[in-house]
Parts: sequence; C-alpha cells; structure tokens
Amino acid sequence: MKRRILAIMLGACVTVFVRPVRAEEPIQPIAPAKVTNPALVELGKKLYFDPRLSKSGAISCNSCHNLSLAGTDNLKMSIGDHWQPDPINTPTVLNSRLNLAQFWDGRAKDLKAQAGGPMVNPVEMASTHELVVNVVQSIPAYATEFKGAFGSDGVDIDRVTAAIAAFEETLVTPNSRFDKWLEGDKSALTKTELEGYALFKDSGCVACHNGPGVGGNSFQKMGVVEPYKTSNPAQGRVAVTGDDADRFNFKVPMLRNVELTYPYFHDGEAATLEQAVETMGKLQLGRTFTEEENAKIVAFLKTLTGDQPQIVLPHLPPSTKKTPQPQPFG
Amino acid sequence: MKRRILAIMLGACVTVFVRPVRAEEPIQPIAPAKVTNPALVELGKKLYFDPRLSKSGAISCNSCHNLSLAGTDNLKMSIGDHWQPDPINTPTVLNSRLNLAQFWDGRAKDLKAQAGGPMVNPVEMASTHELVVNVVQSIPAYATEFKGAFGSDGVDIDRVTAAIAAFEETLVTPNSRFDKWLEGDKSALTKTELEGYALFKDSGCVACHNGPGVGGNSFQKMGVVEPYKTSNPAQGRVAVTGDDADRFNFKVPMLRNVELTYPYFHDGEAATLEQAVETMGKLQLGRTFTEEENAKIVAFLKTLTGDQPQIVLPHLPPSTKKTPQPQPFG
Repeated sequence: MKRRILAIMLGACVTVFVRPVRAEEPIQPIAPAKVTNPALVELGKKLYFDPRLSKSGAISCNSCHNLSLAGTDNLKMSIGDHWQPDPINTPTVLNSRLNLAQFWDGRAKDLKAQAGGPMVNPVEMASTHELVVNVVQSIPAYATEFKGAFGSDGVDIDRVTAAIAAFEETLVTPNSRFDKWLEGDKSALTKTELEGYALFKDSGCVACHNGPGVGGNSFQKMGVVEPYKTSNPAQGRVAVTGDDADRFNFKVPMLRNVELTYPYFHDGEAATLEQAVETMGKLQLGRTFTEEENAKIVAFLKTLTGDQPQIVLPHLPPSTKKTPQPQPFG
Repeated sequence: MKRRILAIMLGACVTVFVRPVRAEEPIQPIAPAKVTNPALVELGKKLYFDPRLSKSGAISCNSCHNLSLAGTDNLKMSIGDHWQPDPINTPTVLNSRLNLAQFWDGRAKDLKAQAGGPMVNPVEMASTHELVVNVVQSIPAYATEFKGAFGSDGVDIDRVTAAIAAFEETLVTPNSRFDKWLEGDKSALTKTELEGYALFKDSGCVACHNGPGVGGNSFQKMGVVEPYKTSNPAQGRVAVTGDDADRFNFKVPMLRNVELTYPYFHDGEAATLEQAVETMGKLQLGRTFTEEENAKIVAFLKTLTGDQPQIVLPHLPPSTKKTPQPQPFG
C-alpha cells in the first residue's frame, strides 16, 4: 500500500517536468538524444565516416546514409562497390532507433545487427568482418579509443558494430513543427497543415504511420487494395520468415523528415511526395485523393521535418604499415 | 621624409602584435584562415559537400578531397563516375590556397579555376557546367543563399566555383608542432625531429620543399638524377606549356600534413613516408639515406601536421520538381 502511494507521488512529481503532450494523438514527439557514453558515440561517429570499413576504401556508412542529406542519398538505388546498384532503396538512418527492426524486411533486430550488414554485402561495402577488424585493429589511435569506450582492450566486430549503433542512436530529429504543435504550440501549424493532418488520420494513413516515428513500427503489405507493380525483385518479409503470407510485406517507413528523404518506396520509384501520397491512397486505402487533398497531406508531411543532427566532421586516424591496403580496383 | 618616419613607426607598432618568427628559416608558419564573407564560405561549404554537382548525384568534392582524411582519399587512384580510376593521385585540398597553381600540372591558375574542373571531368564527377547550374538554380534555398553571398540574384558557374573556392581558402592547418617551434617554442620539437629538419635542409630537400606550404610553389622534374619509372601516363607541365622541357615537370607537392596524405607522388606509388623519402633522395638528390637518416626525416615530416579544420557538416537543401534527376546508372 505504501509503495503504491509512493508511486503515485513520484508520478505526480515527474509530471511537473514533462511538457504536456496531446495524449489523444496517434503520433508522439521525437525525444532528444541521450548520450550516456560520449566516448563510445564519438568512436562510433569515426567508424560511421570511415571509408576503410569497405573493401575499396572509398565507401563509408555516410556514403549512402549521408548526414548532409537527412541520412539517405536521395538516389533510387544506392551505388555500391564497383558501382553496383543496390537492389533496394536506402532508408534514412535518422530516427532509425525507433524502428521495430532494421532493413525493409526487418532482418536485423536492432541497429547493432544492422551495422554489420552493409560492410559485408558484396554489392555494398564488399568487405568482411575479419577485414574490418584487421583494418581497425591496425590503427593505434582506434585501439586506444576502443579501450576508452569499452573499458578494456580489444577490437572485434561486436564492438565495432556496437559503437556505430551507439552513434546512430543519437541521430534523432526533435523539434519539428508538428512536434511543437503536439506539445501545445497552436501557432506551429497552419490551417492547411492541420487539415492535412486531419485527412491523414481520417483517410486511414495513420493506421500504419503512427507512433513517434510516424511509421517504422509494423510490417504491412505493399499493395493492399490493388497490387503494387514494380520490376524490383525484393519480396519483403517472406525472405526472413519463410511464410508466404509475408510476401510483399515491408516495414512501414517512418515519415519523419520525409520531405528530405526522397525518392520513396522500397524501389525508390516515387520521386515526389505527391506521387507517394497518390500511390499510397490508391493501393493501400482504395482512395483517390483530389489534388487539393493531396496537397494538404503533403503540407502536413512537411511539418515532420525536425532539427537535423549537428555533426562535427571527425578526423580519422591514419592507417599504418600494418593496415590492409584498400582494394578499389581489385 | 615624414611619410618614411611614419612608416617606420607603423612598422614598429605592428611588430609588437606579431609573434616572433625565425626569419632565417626556409619554411614559414601557416597563417590561420581569415573569413571576410561568412555567407559565401558557408554556401561554398554546402556546394563542396553536395553530390548533386556530379552527374550520378553521388560524388561531391568531399568524396575525393575528404575532410575526414586530411583533404584527400588515401587511395592511389580516386574513384570517379561509374567507378573509373582517376589517372592521377588526388592532392589534398588542405592549404591548397598556398599552391602557385592548381592540379599536378598547374593547369588551373587558382582555386576557383580548379573547382570547375572535376565536376566536368568525365572520369570524375562527369557533369557539365550547364547541368551544375541547372541543379543549383532549381533549389530555392540555394538561390537565396547566392543572393546573400553575392549581394544580387543569380546562379552561374562563376559564382558556384567562387563560392567553393572561398570555402577552400579557409581550409588551412595552423599550429603544427613545427610552426610552434618556428614561432619560438623550443620544446615543441624533439632532438630527433630537429636532426631530421637539419638533414632535410642540408641534403637539399628544402630546395623545392620550402615556404609556408613546404612545397607547392614551383614545378620540378620528377627524376632529376635518375628517371622516375612509372606506368602512369601523366606527362606533367608539358601538357600545359607544350614545351618539351616541361615533360615530367610536376608541381612540387606541399608537405603540410604529409603524414596523413598517403599514398605519395603523382602516381600514388609510394605507400609510406619512408618509401617516399628514399625515392626522393635517390631520384632528386642522388643520395641514399641511411635507415637512421630516413627515420629522422620522417620524424621531422610528422611535425608538419597542423590543426585540421573543424567542419560542421552542412545540411543540404532538398531538390525540387525542377531539379534535374541524378543519373547514376545512365
């Protein structure tokens, strides 16, 4: 009984420090980043920007998840090792911590698991975990930073990906105009934007695009009402579960900063927000938005652009004689 | 007469505010950047990081002149459009304002002239100046920034390259340990480093590698005492002057931050500083350095690493429906 009263009292105390949020809304504000281990985040930032994590020595995480371009590359298909087209559109790294799983098919359970993927994908960075570790281990300044970040000596792929993930955890975009409105600033949105939001809710977009990420928290079929036509071979979630019911099920992309993360869909075939809204309306909701409705929804979507992370470009420690040489043309 | 006295008095006054520099030395310290038009520099930074200045939409100035890697890419040959090898090693952009001309053969008279080159080189960014201007012009936020930076409306290639050059002018690396020593801090260098510097001067390296850039201020023949053997087809300065006497004459590279700008020479064939010192001794000076001498010179060269520019990654304004689409696989 006493414990319960204490909990209620604590609850009341905490409330004082939390900004009022419109609790009834299906979208919640993005929380700012919390950094508990700055040394780990700084190390992760270096690794994120280090092209030596690729076989060629030329492709870093930031090449495709470019933090000058809202964490993506704005290309339909990214460019991998030897200029190979990546078979699926690159999702943004911004707010990716909010995804229920990583990659379009959710095959990585978290950011750490994801970080190990592209570096060994032969059409992306084309390295191996062994080579990545050998490269990082050969650079004394990195070895020192690993010790500082993890509290003990040693470089392994587990630590490399944990550091990258720790940096990525900080890549959030709070303070969008929409979040300001959610937090009670009535002047943050225009009438048109609010009408767009109402349409977004009433027409059913919000059924999948909800939560703080405005998506990212479920897998859904691409093409519910009518099938989505694409030449892209990706089959979606079935590749993970083996369950035919999951064919063409993809992770619902987050709509945070969506104005900046064009082109859209897993095949990158929608060049503009207008096109994306039109296609989604037809294929997922069986609804043809008028030009005016489409424009209102787009106006609402543009209010989801938050503060982009302020990144001071890291200076990478030089290679040594022990560092395996990059193989750009091998 | 009065004017002369005034000049002497002014001279005396100025001296008070200038740090004493070892005037007798053939190398001078790097001066910090002076920013006279911050709006122009900020615009130039955005353009420098913008991959939309390439045909593919994937290669920016920073791809090869990577400011995380001391303004170079640490590759023997850079990777251009469609993964083509660049036929000559990428020199660093750091302190490049000090070069007597730009490119290995000096074909661009200044940074502005240089900036227009790679974007239209078919093996580099593979765009055209017309396309670059069309892309930039189509983005309203850029148009506004051009007006702020230049004082009037209008985007043209002249302004694009002027802005990039203005940013590059700021990319200097003062405060190296060697500069601290030049400025009177006797404890800045170790005995070995000072012995290396003495050897650098006495053996004749300094004949070409002098001035604040420790090079960059003359063209010299690659292979003075004996010819330099390479499969690289570059012919050097003759390509600019047409004078056969300029065959294999290349701009002497600056040695500032040379510890970070590996691999070395116009063909990138020297992987380490030790190799570069050995080859230079033999081919340019007819001298075989002992292992100890080589190590001392290398120790001196590593004192030339200065403060790397602190760059806050720019956030690039999004494309619009009018923006020409990138053509990565066209």
